[in-house]
Amino acid sequence: MPRVKCTIAYDGALFSGYQIQPNSRTVQEELEKVLAVIHKGEPIKVTASGRTDAGVHAKGQVIHFDTSLSIPADRWPSALNSRLPEDISVRHAEIVPQSFHARFSAVGKEYRYQIYQDPFRSPFHRFYACHSPIELDTLLMQEAANLLIGTSDFTSFCSAKTEVQDKVRTITKLEVVRSGNTIELRVAGNGFLYNMVRIIAGTLIEIGRGRIAPDAVRAILEGRDRSLAGKTAPAEGLYLWEVFY
Amino acid sequence: MPRVKCTIAYDGALFSGYQIQPNSRTVQEELEKVLAVIHKGEPIKVTASGRTDAGVHAKGQVIHFDTSLSIPADRWPSALNSRLPEDISVRHAEIVPQSFHARFSAVGKEYRYQIYQDPFRSPFHRFYACHSPIELDTLLMQEAANLLIGTSDFTSFCSAKTEVQDKVRTITKLEVVRSGNTIELRVAGNGFLYNMVRIIAGTLIEIGRGRIAPDAVRAILEGRDRSLAGKTAPAEGLYLWEVFY
Repeated sequence: MPRVKCTIAYDGALFSGYQIQPNSRTVQEELEKVLAVIHKGEPIKVTASGRTDAGVHAKGQVIHFDTSLSIPADRWPSALNSRLPEDISVRHAEIVPQSFHARFSAVGKEYRYQIYQDPFRSPFHRFYACHSPIELDTLLMQEAANLLIGTSDFTSFCSAKTEVQDKVRTITKLEVVRSGNTIELRVAGNGFLYNMVRIIAGTLIEIGRGRIAPDAVRAILEGRDRSLAGKTAPAEGLYLWEVFY
Repeated sequence: MPRVKCTIAYDGALFSGYQIQPNSRTVQEELEKVLAVIHKGEPIKVTASGRTDAGVHAKGQVIHFDTSLSIPADRWPSALNSRLPEDISVRHAEIVPQSFHARFSAVGKEYRYQIYQDPFRSPFHRFYACHSPIELDTLLMQEAANLLIGTSDFTSFCSAKTEVQDKVRTITKLEVVRSGNTIELRVAGNGFLYNMVRIIAGTLIEIGRGRIAPDAVRAILEGRDRSLAGKTAPAEGLYLWEVFY
């Protein structure tokens, strides 16, 4: 049975997140509804590289599903896009071996976090960036970011609710890129804990405002205590940018 | 009585346009509702540089109103923004003489029209740009755009429903700017007829696709007949960018 890997983008603003849950609009449910129609009622299970929370966007989420149909890879995007709602778009599809798994084959991910810096809020960014009315010092932010690169126990940068035991992760890239009114954090690593990117973003924002010194990040990491880091930055700034295989 | 001039931005996606109309959500009504609250129930009439249609955005719409309050100019943006819905933002305010009128004092405007060019639609652009799945030739578009610069009778580029008699207008700038997947048309002039920018955009898109030759624009202008020009491009790509005084 052919396995199809798709790269998809979605605007998270009107979704209660990726994963199916009762009485909520989710990305997974929209995908599975459309696949069931294409497969004439046969239920098709979609597996993603991971969940995204309500309000979080994706530029390059990866999913896979198995199909009994012999649709060529390059026809899958249009077949799906013509039936999907406008806030989900399939960007690419390929036929992969059964050994491929969207979640377990992933070796890393890149997330981006967008901050819109302006004295007044922007109507065009309200769903797509975190608003900072205060000027952020991106040099201080980059200094702190550099201290987070590498392999560490990220307990302090992880939702206290997480049940995962092993909180050691490797961050391979953490860049603070300013372009006009927008500051973009680009974070890549081998895996991310629950809320990890948003807590990193919240902490770097505090540092950019001058409320925490950049080298305090060392003590925050070492303390292994969620309450030491900054607030969880809001969902609307976060984008799952790319999944690496 | 002090007259206040404000520069405002709004996301047109969830508005039935600028101007008040019954049973519809409009920018003017949201502004007047908030001003009435600030003035303890006293009705305040807001005058804009001009209307925008449903779905059309503004980066630099200008409005004025008269007030009995002695709020300093630099306090007006926050006073309004704290009460306005998130899709309207007041960017700047100043106290102006009674001789200033948002509509009649305007000597020109700039509009921008955004086209997102990609084989697949983008969930992030669905309310903010016109989607072209076909590659557009921006050199051909600029060649045609140059022929529209200057003073002409724009009857062919004006909604047939318009009742205005004098359809002579001057376009001072018409640039076709590509940046990545986005093509932006920047049009400035002394005044614009109803749907004029969207019909120019629709015509330039046809030219960019190679369906009309660039120099056909001359015959379209001379024919003074709406049916000669291209389709009215969709509202979501249009931004009222700046009003000149």
